[in-house]
Amino acid sequence: MELIWRYGTDAQRKQWLMPLLAGQIRSVFAMTEPAVASSDATNMQATAVVEGDEIVLNGRKWWSSGLGDPHAKVAIFMAYTPNPDLGRHSQHSMVLVPLDTPGVEIVRMVPVFGEYDAPHGHGELAFHNVRVPIQNVIAGPGRGFEIAQGRLGPGRIHHCMRCIGAAEAALELAVNRGMNRTAFGRQILSLGGNYERVADCRVAIDQARLLTLHTASKMDRVGAKGAMQEIAAIKVVAPNVLQRVVDFAIQIHGGAGVSNDTLLTGFHAQARSLRIADGPDEVHKEAIAKLELARRGFSRRKPA
Amino acid sequence: MELIWRYGTDAQRKQWLMPLLAGQIRSVFAMTEPAVASSDATNMQATAVVEGDEIVLNGRKWWSSGLGDPHAKVAIFMAYTPNPDLGRHSQHSMVLVPLDTPGVEIVRMVPVFGEYDAPHGHGELAFHNVRVPIQNVIAGPGRGFEIAQGRLGPGRIHHCMRCIGAAEAALELAVNRGMNRTAFGRQILSLGGNYERVADCRVAIDQARLLTLHTASKMDRVGAKGAMQEIAAIKVVAPNVLQRVVDFAIQIHGGAGVSNDTLLTGFHAQARSLRIADGPDEVHKEAIAKLELARRGFSRRKPA
Amino acid sequence: MELIWRYGTDAQRKQWLMPLLAGQIRSVFAMTEPAVASSDATNMQATAVVEGDEIVLNGRKWWSSGLGDPHAKVAIFMAYTPNPDLGRHSQHSMVLVPLDTPGVEIVRMVPVFGEYDAPHGHGELAFHNVRVPIQNVIAGPGRGFEIAQGRLGPGRIHHCMRCIGAAEAALELAVNRGMNRTAFGRQILSLGGNYERVADCRVAIDQARLLTLHTASKMDRVGAKGAMQEIAAIKVVAPNVLQRVVDFAIQIHGGAGVSNDTLLTGFHAQARSLRIADGPDEVHKEAIAKLELARRGFSRRKPA
Amino acid sequence: MELIWRYGTDAQRKQWLMPLLAGQIRSVFAMTEPAVASSDATNMQATAVVEGDEIVLNGRKWWSSGLGDPHAKVAIFMAYTPNPDLGRHSQHSMVLVPLDTPGVEIVRMVPVFGEYDAPHGHGELAFHNVRVPIQNVIAGPGRGFEIAQGRLGPGRIHHCMRCIGAAEAALELAVNRGMNRTAFGRQILSLGGNYERVADCRVAIDQARLLTLHTASKMDRVGAKGAMQEIAAIKVVAPNVLQRVVDFAIQIHGGAGVSNDTLLTGFHAQARSLRIADGPDEVHKEAIAKLELARRGFSRRKPA
Repeated sequence: MELIWRYGTDAQRKQWLMPLLAGQIRSVFAMTEPAVASSDATNMQATAVVEGDEIVLNGRKWWSSGLGDPHAKVAIFMAYTPNPDLGRHSQHSMVLVPLDTPGVEIVRMVPVFGEYDAPHGHGELAFHNVRVPIQNVIAGPGRGFEIAQGRLGPGRIHHCMRCIGAAEAALELAVNRGMNRTAFGRQILSLGGNYERVADCRVAIDQARLLTLHTASKMDRVGAKGAMQEIAAIKVVAPNVLQRVVDFAIQIHGGAGVSNDTLLTGFHAQARSLRIADGPDEVHKEAIAKLELARRGFSRRKPA
Repeated sequence: MELIWRYGTDAQRKQWLMPLLAGQIRSVFAMTEPAVASSDATNMQATAVVEGDEIVLNGRKWWSSGLGDPHAKVAIFMAYTPNPDLGRHSQHSMVLVPLDTPGVEIVRMVPVFGEYDAPHGHGELAFHNVRVPIQNVIAGPGRGFEIAQGRLGPGRIHHCMRCIGAAEAALELAVNRGMNRTAFGRQILSLGGNYERVADCRVAIDQARLLTLHTASKMDRVGAKGAMQEIAAIKVVAPNVLQRVVDFAIQIHGGAGVSNDTLLTGFHAQARSLRIADGPDEVHKEAIAKLELARRGFSRRKPA
Repeated sequence: MELIWRYGTDAQRKQWLMPLLAGQIRSVFAMTEPAVASSDATNMQATAVVEGDEIVLNGRKWWSSGLGDPHAKVAIFMAYTPNPDLGRHSQHSMVLVPLDTPGVEIVRMVPVFGEYDAPHGHGELAFHNVRVPIQNVIAGPGRGFEIAQGRLGPGRIHHCMRCIGAAEAALELAVNRGMNRTAFGRQILSLGGNYERVADCRVAIDQARLLTLHTASKMDRVGAKGAMQEIAAIKVVAPNVLQRVVDFAIQIHGGAGVSNDTLLTGFHAQARSLRIADGPDEVHKEAIAKLELARRGFSRRKPA
Repeated sequence: MELIWRYGTDAQRKQWLMPLLAGQIRSVFAMTEPAVASSDATNMQATAVVEGDEIVLNGRKWWSSGLGDPHAKVAIFMAYTPNPDLGRHSQHSMVLVPLDTPGVEIVRMVPVFGEYDAPHGHGELAFHNVRVPIQNVIAGPGRGFEIAQGRLGPGRIHHCMRCIGAAEAALELAVNRGMNRTAFGRQILSLGGNYERVADCRVAIDQARLLTLHTASKMDRVGAKGAMQEIAAIKVVAPNVLQRVVDFAIQIHGGAGVSNDTLLTGFHAQARSLRIADGPDEVHKEAIAKLELARRGFSRRKPA
């Protein structure tokens, strides 16, 4: 929704944004591809070729979020639109594609650690010579990268805030379970290094929260570009903190922790997939390091 | 099977062991309980009370392994058989219970991170005044602990060997994926710290393998009791190494890693649940430390 | 100085605080003892016994900070002053002791990883029937604990701020060294996982800084007691972050890193000793966990 | 000694090996240089240029081991001997240089974390147009790399064995201290996660020992070249295990741990410097990964 609001035409807003805001329909975001490493967006193989008044779409996408929702009606499809006159970051387009357009194939839903995250879920889509009007291209052909970048800052902070909430919930579950069950004559939580791990969780969560607040505040003040290092930092920190707190909470729960009886397996899926989605940890760390070096006047030389 | 072979009567062997060995039926092991911390076996609440020629069983069990198999016909049920004349490690019994005995309720199958590990799986069982002949008690009432201890050494090493195989397979998957996909113009595996992580995995797996072989060899030479510290050590090491290698392999796979398209989510479930099953990490570490202190002449004083 | 200012009498302030503030003399803080675990202050063996107008001091202290300074003229000596009428936190006194008082023995200076931290340093002192006027007791006999507690909040934040500055300096050294030296045809910093480690350091330092600022701000608003959990948290975080950044910087420096040619070995000594001084990591983590449980209504039961 | 025995001429053996074996003199190994990253041996700047019957030596070396011994009489100096007709691994020579040769300057001794490791120690040497007979070149000009490689396998295993012994000693110190001192009414070792850390240390040491034994055994069977991956692995594992065990032991000792009153600071210096000497951790991990890939038929492509 935010994307159409920021980059869409009045016609696109009227046709798609209004019913989205009204909750009548839902959208699907189709960017990641199964056949290539999507952490490098220039790897993208799907194509969006302009032919007269139409744009022709081909390719395969997965982790298309929201596909499982019964109200999912439109996909935003990102693909390669070759243009030899423009630079490498102006070769991709984002296109609004009604899911009932001929040639759109819903291949399957994709689980995350066995869970389909109903009712939204993630799916796999194939596009076979799908034709839509050129007016469906958001902001015009070749501007896909620019749009994708503009979307990422707020989206990442949103993910991080949810991770911190989940981490607090996981710690709460661990403490309650650990204080209410006993083994060897003592409360589970008071055995061995468990208190230390409670402290480690508290300290990690608090630091992640402060970094998130600091990043959001800086983004508000200087924009997403000026807060790039902080955005990358919190995108690495928050899911990792959640994964660590959840791992502790699972251990305190014993068998119940790995069953799907508690929220913990869902939190685990959230943490583990977020270490990959929207840029894997390693890509963000590379970005942090580059900015750290640039600040000191070093440029990373391409290896010879 | 091993348990009936070692501790069963001729009649028990004939009735249950023969068809088990022939693959005609399968057994279910019912020890863990949902309502208490089962890491401390003295917490067990299920009861097995002798009444004349029968023994009456009540209680609830989960993580009963093998329950999902269509050939599952008999459970080994462990429960509390109060006997004021005997010590605290002589208060439990193991009883052979045909699953079609009146009062045995199959509550549900329990997933591990969303997977049911078909066809065997783990299940939840309730026993409501279940009556079986006293002859179904393995080795006689009150010997459950002794039997459980005897079973654990070889069982744990078996788990560890499987973890090491899985870790090798996960590393193989990571290397193949990481060398066959590219991002930012290079093979994924040659980016950032990935080579170092391949090395970390190799070194961790090799050390776990050597410790497993050493432990098995020592157990053969001096028995499970004399190899207690090593058995506890490998029970901690192997699942943790697997979890770490799988985490790396998932990261290299990107979205495919958290889907169920590869073996990795199954390996993850195996690693994570084994850090709890057959004694959680923390209990084994406590045992290792106690033996380390005892060797130096220190006894752990009960906290005052 | 702060302690005399807050708790001293006018006479004490005139005699000691003025020349301290003028930089004419320096003080030595003598609390830690070599023969017992000083993380538990009730272990203290040194005695300060009131006899008429005098107080008689006996005992051995080490890690008495500032003893190596040539202007060190007075020690604040903390010791056990038995008083059966008062509670266990009213059994200790802090006494001002001129270092030239008969019976004060300077045993030796104590190095930290081979460095004496000249010119201040840490020393070992023995007190043999040292007699000073009762007026030298700060705030009166039995108030040592109270004074010690009041001093710790600001002191700990001060330590943490210095750790963060040192960590920034260590990262700066690592980046400069790593970008200005080459191996295998590339800048050292661009080899293997080094960029990731730069990012890890940056993220860890930033989180520690935010937690320090947050803690200082909360202490200003609600006092040290209300910020106890945060003070304990930053006391654990900052030295550990410094130790980790220094370890990375040492590795980037190679042999120079473990020599005393750079600031890194000094930073290492600072980090490693601060994980022990003013309460070891483990004691602070225990405090954090207790507060975490208390907030949820759980009290830690004494083990039975 | 081993090097002269394996590669020296009869004359060299007679002149140097005999008095070395008799303990009358000691040798100094001068390979690492202060001005370049010595982890890449091709960085070496010191020169050894043949002029008629003599070889002329120039350059600066540090971490020259054994220089502090009063019986140190001869250095083995490794330097660049340009030869356009030979490959890049045939451009270096090892030369026997009596320390009293004109032009040899002993610059200083270099401490490791403040300790000089008396009586042997490490030093810094400068060579100013030092001339020695061509007969002093070991195995002839250009064979320095070959000799250096041949020496490393056994040398590394030797280092690792010493690390394991030191780690056992550090754990022993930790256990004795932790069981003999009390805090908060309990033995220190029974507080918080200390038992778990004892277990972690035991398990890590045992795995390192098994890997060392396995590596030594494999080297005996198939030679250092065939055991390259294992040698690199143990060279990474053993010093890191020692560093970790020492860190724990220091924490248990409190202030005494960072003083030089126990063996722990020396063990720390040993561990930390060995993570750099004879190839830093990162170089060995790179080697392990390359061999892992090669075994699977992948070659590491040079980045384009």
